[in-house]
Amino acid sequence: MKKYVEMNKQELEEEIASLRAVYKKYQGMGLNLNMARGKPCREQLDLSMGLMDALNSDADLSCADGTDCRNYGVLTGIDEAKELIGAMMENKPENIIIYGNSSLNVMYDTVSRAYTHGIMGNTPWCKLDKVKFLCPVPGYDRHFAITEYFGIEMINVRMTSDGPDMDEVERLVSSDEAIKGIWCVPKYSNPQGYSYSDETVKRFARLKPAAKDFRIFWDNAYGIHHLYDNDQDYLIEILAECKKAGNPDMVYKFASTSKITFPGSGIAALATSLNNLDDITAQLTNQTIGHDKVNQLRHVRFFGDIDGMKEHMRKHADIIRPKFEAVIEILERDLAPVGIGSWTKPKGGYFISFDAPNGCAKDIVDRAKKAGVTMTGAGATFPYKKDPDDSNIRIAPTFPSLADLRTAMDIFTVCVRISAAKKLLETVTE
Amino acid sequence: MKKYVEMNKQELEEEIASLRAVYKKYQGMGLNLNMARGKPCREQLDLSMGLMDALNSDADLSCADGTDCRNYGVLTGIDEAKELIGAMMENKPENIIIYGNSSLNVMYDTVSRAYTHGIMGNTPWCKLDKVKFLCPVPGYDRHFAITEYFGIEMINVRMTSDGPDMDEVERLVSSDEAIKGIWCVPKYSNPQGYSYSDETVKRFARLKPAAKDFRIFWDNAYGIHHLYDNDQDYLIEILAECKKAGNPDMVYKFASTSKITFPGSGIAALATSLNNLDDITAQLTNQTIGHDKVNQLRHVRFFGDIDGMKEHMRKHADIIRPKFEAVIEILERDLAPVGIGSWTKPKGGYFISFDAPNGCAKDIVDRAKKAGVTMTGAGATFPYKKDPDDSNIRIAPTFPSLADLRTAMDIFTVCVRISAAKKLLETVTE
Repeated sequence: MKKYVEMNKQELEEEIASLRAVYKKYQGMGLNLNMARGKPCREQLDLSMGLMDALNSDADLSCADGTDCRNYGVLTGIDEAKELIGAMMENKPENIIIYGNSSLNVMYDTVSRAYTHGIMGNTPWCKLDKVKFLCPVPGYDRHFAITEYFGIEMINVRMTSDGPDMDEVERLVSSDEAIKGIWCVPKYSNPQGYSYSDETVKRFARLKPAAKDFRIFWDNAYGIHHLYDNDQDYLIEILAECKKAGNPDMVYKFASTSKITFPGSGIAALATSLNNLDDITAQLTNQTIGHDKVNQLRHVRFFGDIDGMKEHMRKHADIIRPKFEAVIEILERDLAPVGIGSWTKPKGGYFISFDAPNGCAKDIVDRAKKAGVTMTGAGATFPYKKDPDDSNIRIAPTFPSLADLRTAMDIFTVCVRISAAKKLLETVTE
Repeated sequence: MKKYVEMNKQELEEEIASLRAVYKKYQGMGLNLNMARGKPCREQLDLSMGLMDALNSDADLSCADGTDCRNYGVLTGIDEAKELIGAMMENKPENIIIYGNSSLNVMYDTVSRAYTHGIMGNTPWCKLDKVKFLCPVPGYDRHFAITEYFGIEMINVRMTSDGPDMDEVERLVSSDEAIKGIWCVPKYSNPQGYSYSDETVKRFARLKPAAKDFRIFWDNAYGIHHLYDNDQDYLIEILAECKKAGNPDMVYKFASTSKITFPGSGIAALATSLNNLDDITAQLTNQTIGHDKVNQLRHVRFFGDIDGMKEHMRKHADIIRPKFEAVIEILERDLAPVGIGSWTKPKGGYFISFDAPNGCAKDIVDRAKKAGVTMTGAGATFPYKKDPDDSNIRIAPTFPSLADLRTAMDIFTVCVRISAAKKLLETVTE
């Protein structure tokens, strides 16, 4: 097959006509396929049904220290859960707060608290004229939604396969006191599946922020979410690295079991320095008496320890690995020969990032939608939903069945080719 | 026995000496009894162990509408839970948001959201010079902690057995635009166990607030928490009443199953007008993808319907009724004859309110503490922990065993008598 850039006007027109016939056929099938969100599929959820038997009516719902998990109390979480989640996050139990069911909610609360009361005695952000966040792009739409909701100005920073452009991060953070934070998904990033290099993490830890209350919002959502047993990304632990670099309080680290057990019914956690923990718990005591300890205990009893959790993650990988591979296979089969688009090949996480020719992403997503395939909205991976190149599309392969996913991808690549060919047609002279 | 006010100096001194001997004996017993918080006891928690079997690994964790409760989504809660909690709150399912495990957290979030973003388009409270709340006193310390944390000025309003002094509430709310809210526990109030009269609720619904964003924070924590089957308080439903009065958006109503199943592992809810719900969900979508639906389903399957829940509450009542009665019995036995103190006799809820002679509450609580009996801190039932009369003490009878409770109350009344007698001694001339 000829590459599109090498085609003349007539060849492009013929290609579009032939693709349109295929597209029409798909449209006639009345499909309803969804690759929009990073949702586990049914088989993945079935892996955790044992959670429902971890605590039955005969069980002793007491912690090792005798605390009755059924009653009020224990603001920052039970020791056993801190132990387990600490091992998952590679942090000491004493650096951890166990929250409710959603790390997104913890991040929202963390921004909200900085906004209303300030971080460790600094001016509340609501009293400042301007607050800014750095946003590595493409990134996670729900991160950007939080900062947008609080009127925080978001500044795009380019992602590389090693993490955010650190020259730019260092320059901005050290020169502008209004920059109070940066959103990071450091391992198997959303949507590219990139993991920050050792050098990137070390440069993060050595930042010299102009703002005393600058914090790295380190959303390690996919810390143990590997696709391959023998080919895994490794991420340097940031809390320890910050401490070494003399910036012990500079990072808030988030994680949850949402994509380990049941999304929405897992446990979320924050790991940070003892200074930050003191600052947070002084506030948290006004917000709640405590989170769901029974569910914390349920998770501890189900997994036993971090090895049980890692074994469990291998089963997830067995289910979703073929899906990631199918996406890559179909992109390579349909788009590589015609030289259109580029895509990542993650070794973990929940997403594949696709870059269409500039100016095509919206059109592709619309086109797919009309053929019954829902993608994450074009632009969603950028602050304010504005992709300056109208190029990036996030692919979420986990939720559909493998058969549905293949069909969805077949349709997707047809949409990409139509859109790309049409775009080229605008520029060819003959 | 002679009333203390009728005793002369010598009689009072003899009384104190004799009480001190008793007190010393108790001190020697090395007790550790706790009547500080409204915590259910072990037997109450045991009532809900069936909750642990409501969903096992064979269960279908789907809603009636087919939603897989294990996965992401459903921001405002599953229909079945809205149905059940709606029946509990006497509101329609469409007026309800089901949250996570803590109604306190919902109240915190509601204040926090008003502070950061304002209510239904009104100025965010953080942008105002002054925000005030009315606080019926005595009241719930955790309510006051929230408003204090946000720098909201709290104004005491006297409680009566019919609810807050409504002349005062009407006067203040209609004249001061800075007054944005009032904390209410309208049924079996904390700590007095009073329920608002029909007249009080109707006057609430007909308030004409100076502030457009004035809201009644109606914490109906004890809506179905009766002690007696045939002698229950009745509360007019406030949402309907506000709608009738032309104030449909004036109330946020809170409830939870914390004292129905497991504190900390139940479900919380907010009921309010559709306008308020729109305002809230527009924010909530930035905060979370959804709360714990599996736990919502667990509660629905466990109770079946509101009748199942009410039957369950009768079992709670059977356990805690004797405790309330023991407290009243001992107060009447030890304090009525000497004419010291006054106390409430609630027909539901979690507390009994005790008023000591002015200037004695702190002393009594300290004294009890030194004999191994922990009470709620004196002053805790007032904003800023300042009881102007140093008189009110909250008694929480549910947590200790009946035997421990009787011992604790025996000690408490000794402490009250010592303190009251000493106070009188300061004033008698001979």
